Amino acid sequence: MERMLIGETPQHIGESVRLAGWVHIRRDHGKLIFIDLRDRSGKIQMIIVPDHVEAYEAAKGVRNEFVIDIVGKVKSRPGGAQNEKISTGNVEIEVEQLKVLAVAENVLPVEPSSDTLDVNLKTLLDNRQLSLRNAKVNAIFRIYSSMLRAYDAVLSQDGFLEIKTPKILSSATEGGANFFKVKYFDRSAYLAQSPQFYKQAGVGAFERVFEIGTVFRAEPHFTTRHVNEYTGLDAEMGFIESFSDVMDELEKTMMFIFKTFQDECAEEMALHEAQMPSIVAIPRLKLTEALQILEQQYGKKMEDGVVDIDPEGERLIGEYVKKEYGSDLVFLTHYPTVARPFYVMPNEDPQFTDSFDLLFRGLEIASGGQRIHNYADLAKNIQLHGLNPDEFKHYLDNFRFGMPPHGGWGLGSERIVQKLLGLKSVKEAILFPRDVKRLTP
Amino acid sequence: MERMLIGETPQHIGESVRLAGWVHIRRDHGKLIFIDLRDRSGKIQMIIVPDHVEAYEAAKGVRNEFVIDIVGKVKSRPGGAQNEKISTGNVEIEVEQLKVLAVAENVLPVEPSSDTLDVNLKTLLDNRQLSLRNAKVNAIFRIYSSMLRAYDAVLSQDGFLEIKTPKILSSATEGGANFFKVKYFDRSAYLAQSPQFYKQAGVGAFERVFEIGTVFRAEPHFTTRHVNEYTGLDAEMGFIESFSDVMDELEKTMMFIFKTFQDECAEEMALHEAQMPSIVAIPRLKLTEALQILEQQYGKKMEDGVVDIDPEGERLIGEYVKKEYGSDLVFLTHYPTVARPFYVMPNEDPQFTDSFDLLFRGLEIASGGQRIHNYADLAKNIQLHGLNPDEFKHYLDNFRFGMPPHGGWGLGSERIVQKLLGLKSVKEAILFPRDVKRLTP
Repeated sequence: MERMLIGETPQHIGESVRLAGWVHIRRDHGKLIFIDLRDRSGKIQMIIVPDHVEAYEAAKGVRNEFVIDIVGKVKSRPGGAQNEKISTGNVEIEVEQLKVLAVAENVLPVEPSSDTLDVNLKTLLDNRQLSLRNAKVNAIFRIYSSMLRAYDAVLSQDGFLEIKTPKILSSATEGGANFFKVKYFDRSAYLAQSPQFYKQAGVGAFERVFEIGTVFRAEPHFTTRHVNEYTGLDAEMGFIESFSDVMDELEKTMMFIFKTFQDECAEEMALHEAQMPSIVAIPRLKLTEALQILEQQYGKKMEDGVVDIDPEGERLIGEYVKKEYGSDLVFLTHYPTVARPFYVMPNEDPQFTDSFDLLFRGLEIASGGQRIHNYADLAKNIQLHGLNPDEFKHYLDNFRFGMPPHGGWGLGSERIVQKLLGLKSVKEAILFPRDVKRLTP
Repeated sequence: MERMLIGETPQHIGESVRLAGWVHIRRDHGKLIFIDLRDRSGKIQMIIVPDHVEAYEAAKGVRNEFVIDIVGKVKSRPGGAQNEKISTGNVEIEVEQLKVLAVAENVLPVEPSSDTLDVNLKTLLDNRQLSLRNAKVNAIFRIYSSMLRAYDAVLSQDGFLEIKTPKILSSATEGGANFFKVKYFDRSAYLAQSPQFYKQAGVGAFERVFEIGTVFRAEPHFTTRHVNEYTGLDAEMGFIESFSDVMDELEKTMMFIFKTFQDECAEEMALHEAQMPSIVAIPRLKLTEALQILEQQYGKKMEDGVVDIDPEGERLIGEYVKKEYGSDLVFLTHYPTVARPFYVMPNEDPQFTDSFDLLFRGLEIASGGQRIHNYADLAKNIQLHGLNPDEFKHYLDNFRFGMPPHGGWGLGSERIVQKLLGLKSVKEAILFPRDVKRLTP
């Protein structure tokens, strides 16, 4: 008999079926043994009675998280639908055969069947093989996967081509120090801290490109929003009029992702008691305006002469736009030239750039803007940033043969899910996160 | 006026439109200047007459690969449809305004407008910013992108969850020496040469998972089928009966991908004069059977006592199954234990394993099989392979709490496209390939 998924059983009342999955909970009720079985489609209650001698004997030895394979009869279970923890509450299984496929150790360091894993981050991550089986933790990665597909779908629809760009680079460019160094045969190389240069090259060939890829950051941070390896959602588009076009496209992308969460992830979001983000036009505030708001409304002032915003300021601006515009997102625009990399397009007022950050519930989730597309301007800006154009030869080559005006963004996939679900740390939104101290499991 | 794509112009005959793109070819015919304009949707012929003084003067200075923005009238062009090189042959544009958005250097190291870039691999790759604009080269990456989406679609349909696993590992496990070493803050780490351990962990939580991710191989190869960084299409599935289930799923995946090539990529395939692979059941031959066939039909014998196949043997078996079964694919099964990693499930005959390779047109594109899911068996097999179980603690942890029988595959994305189009080197199917000597552009 072929294995059936638990989610399909309600259509097979009265029939014999074969199921396989994990023992979610086992309860011994005198003569009866109850097992809640769990597979990827849901959970179901099963009863094992002494009449089925072999199954009953096997069931006696079974513990939580054993993997079992059973044959049994689907029975309707009136009133069972009230039991919210069992997705197929209106049916149960009377087990006739039971085979153990794999055993589990006696003591579980975390208990997958608990409603909320009330453990600290270290325990949660150290025991990933078990914590990922918990419904609430599991839901994070179902949502994450929906988001990846939504990102792909909306950009493909809009004529963006999915590309894959190299992660090993010959030099630590972009003027940053936060590169991991790799021994590459007889020389040194570096891990890409963004696909920036290569997605720009993609514009020269395909106009519109996107990439879902690993990003490596050698930043020695210890915060709830940083990791050293994450999955970037990048995009770059040619023939823009201004960086507003880039924000328009990113806005469309975010709304499509939010719509996908609404359509596909209601159950997962409910487990986290998460608010669905509102689908409204994203307000766009100049950074200088935002700083004024912070000063006037919240009495928060940056150091004299510093035109920049800190995490607390971002959080407050998030509150402000929620209150004033009903929006969970806000674009902060026109960052100062000194705070942005050399490839960012200067604004008409050369103190500022045609760039933006996107905040979601007060956390920066994306950076973007227009890029310089003229060879001479770019070479000059490299120098203005105190860098040597010779070290950027291969990058500059992209601009020798006709590069259209273009711009794009880099979006952090895990931060979206972190803020969507109100997770304390971004690490909870990564299967096996990497930080300064953590390289395992 | 908003920019329109060239592909939309046939619906706008008689109207004024704005287009933007690259100068594909410019021809001066005395008083008339002809420009074939190229954007991501196609190519169109444009005429600039002296009456439009400013446009005409601007057009005189324009050369191939300049980026321009024009306003003009769409005119029907009877008979123009015969011109196969212009996708919108039945319309042309009478240009009224012309603005140069970006210039290109005078001498193009490779010429994007040529039918076939008759250059060697080094020139092709050194000048990626231009070679990618060539229609035939460009088509490779449109096909590649379709393949990525098809892979995602077929596995998502079948209940596989897309996951992202870490690329920086604490130790060089899997018993291989082909790891790149990374300086990770104050210690050493390694780049993942496959997501093997993590996708198996995924089975414990999600039953069925897939990943599209970067794979790093520090192999000092100089062949047409090896690179040091590529995009792996991995999958792993729980609750299998045997490794036939894995082959069934991979067969379904390949057929879906081939169907997608048929449906979406006919034009791109035609540019490469590529044969569509046949959609037939994939023959499954034991490796020992394949070796017999090689000896009997092709007089090819491996060294005494060696039960393995070499690239020439794979090529010949590819020919054989094409002739005998009309199939472009073949599974070779039951590789010897000594030729497979420790985690592969031994066959009933312990000399062999429940494993397979998948060949496409005579090239190995995938490896897979069933994995050992029992903790004790796995620990023992690690030792049998001369490795130390203590070094695999975090991997072994996955098997302590109930891991179902499972298996999966690793599929090389670029090799599929290489063999589909008959590209001489797999590097042609990678935007910016990395090999022992090449880390740029």
